[in-house]
Amino acid sequence: MTLLYALDLLGTAAFAASGALAGIRRGMDVFGVLVLGLATATGGGTLRDLLLGDSPPFILKDETYLYLSVVVSLLVFIFHRRLEFFANPLTYFDAVGLGTFVVIGTGKAIEFRLGFFGAVMMGVLTATAGGMLRDLLSAKVPMVLQKEVYASACLAGGALLYLLQLTVLPPYITALLSASTVIILRLLAIRYNWSLPRAADSTVPTNGAVRK
Amino acid sequence: MTLLYALDLLGTAAFAASGALAGIRRGMDVFGVLVLGLATATGGGTLRDLLLGDSPPFILKDETYLYLSVVVSLLVFIFHRRLEFFANPLTYFDAVGLGTFVVIGTGKAIEFRLGFFGAVMMGVLTATAGGMLRDLLSAKVPMVLQKEVYASACLAGGALLYLLQLTVLPPYITALLSASTVIILRLLAIRYNWSLPRAADSTVPTNGAVRK
Amino acid sequence: MTLLYALDLLGTAAFAASGALAGIRRGMDVFGVLVLGLATATGGGTLRDLLLGDSPPFILKDETYLYLSVVVSLLVFIFHRRLEFFANPLTYFDAVGLGTFVVIGTGKAIEFRLGFFGAVMMGVLTATAGGMLRDLLSAKVPMVLQKEVYASACLAGGALLYLLQLTVLPPYITALLSASTVIILRLLAIRYNWSLPRAADSTVPTNGAVRK
Repeated sequence: MTLLYALDLLGTAAFAASGALAGIRRGMDVFGVLVLGLATATGGGTLRDLLLGDSPPFILKDETYLYLSVVVSLLVFIFHRRLEFFANPLTYFDAVGLGTFVVIGTGKAIEFRLGFFGAVMMGVLTATAGGMLRDLLSAKVPMVLQKEVYASACLAGGALLYLLQLTVLPPYITALLSASTVIILRLLAIRYNWSLPRAADSTVPTNGAVRK
Repeated sequence: MTLLYALDLLGTAAFAASGALAGIRRGMDVFGVLVLGLATATGGGTLRDLLLGDSPPFILKDETYLYLSVVVSLLVFIFHRRLEFFANPLTYFDAVGLGTFVVIGTGKAIEFRLGFFGAVMMGVLTATAGGMLRDLLSAKVPMVLQKEVYASACLAGGALLYLLQLTVLPPYITALLSASTVIILRLLAIRYNWSLPRAADSTVPTNGAVRK
Repeated sequence: MTLLYALDLLGTAAFAASGALAGIRRGMDVFGVLVLGLATATGGGTLRDLLLGDSPPFILKDETYLYLSVVVSLLVFIFHRRLEFFANPLTYFDAVGLGTFVVIGTGKAIEFRLGFFGAVMMGVLTATAGGMLRDLLSAKVPMVLQKEVYASACLAGGALLYLLQLTVLPPYITALLSASTVIILRLLAIRYNWSLPRAADSTVPTNGAVRK
């Protein structure tokens, strides 16, 4: 599981960077930037552990995630003007984190004997709830609810993992195939600007315009 | 308890529809609409179970609630233009869900030996926290904090249940009376446009206007 | 520990008052004002207990906190026009609450055998998460992420407590020194208008202006 742990840390770092950047854009002070980095990187797994009843959550058992998130957020706070050099790699790391988090979350839920829906939901939550928390703390509608094939890639990967682990495939192949599915779907979505359908007349409801 | 379960599912469906509609009005994509439906329908009971330490929460034990919420949200996403035909029944279903959720939440808290305040609070949370989550995910101030006799009807029903279960009344009578109290208060409040008092000069505080 | 309990209740009352005032300023009805008072006063400790896996959380074991929060919120709702007389004492009570909550939260986390980062984080969360919840329920970016030396004072006090409890100092001295550190730092920050640094060009990112 050493590769999975390494990918997990890579994803954590990428998520922390995305959270810290959001804090900087909202004009937060250095503490706020650290909190947004921490929340984005560790919020999803923490919520998953709360829901599974696995307490204390993983971040309080292995503090590596906390230190890593804070160090990355601090580096982003200091060097954020130069982050344009990293924008491209960050997108890839974020996609890798997404795939890894889905596999870890769905896998853990299966160990806890959850059913299909619950297990896939835990995988999606692990990968997306940190970003939702980041947006809530920025007083914005969560990005993941509005645009891009982000959560859908997670859904596909989680469902694939659940189905494959019912077969005779060895676990690491199952994990690899599922994570790759998420990562490839996510990168294709960015490359070709895919998006999910919205309700046709969502801007003209008779019972009130879209509220700001 | 079969009637209670049926009413629980009816309420779940009504809450999911209200969540999905909110997502459509905010211009979310189909994934966002499903998440808002799920969160509105199951968020209150999930928070209650987290607070009671009953893990995993009910939605992960009986996945019926999850599938029902998703199917209803999808139907709303597809047919929402025709929802005006359902607006009236939806209001009634929502009131029924409110009464049922209060009775289930307060009752479960009493089983967990909570005191009066805690038990009533769990009933109110079960019925209203899903809607609060819906509004938070839409980056709005929760409706329940601002207007209408909504939470107050839940408070009354929860308190009544706590007091009645101390008497010799059989449990199903206690449940029925409490749920009916919530439903009737809620429908009367809609019919006669009741609202709770606000602080007199809330719009002219010297220390800063109401912030948008 | 009677002094600590008394300070805890004083802090709870001060936090409830700050929450109730925020509700009044947002034009909420009386129920909303009570919920904001409750959430601000008890949200931090409740989140801490959820994360530590200590269920049910403290507010459901000793309902004093709930009743106190509601009574204070109601009094604020009724007499808020005269609160200017209390603004000064409220600032002091709030600082005392901050110090007490940090000591209680960090101390409890140490009992639960958390590491340095986790224990300090629990102390900071206990003191600040209620205020964050208050701001989220008001659809605002949490104040604590944006300005003033508020969380940093908590960080300093929590770290001090963790380090001092490794020494031979008696627990009450450790608690007293740590709480005093938080309170004094907080009051100095108000007096001299200290604030934390922000990212230099946070208002001119090339990838999008600060979104409202």
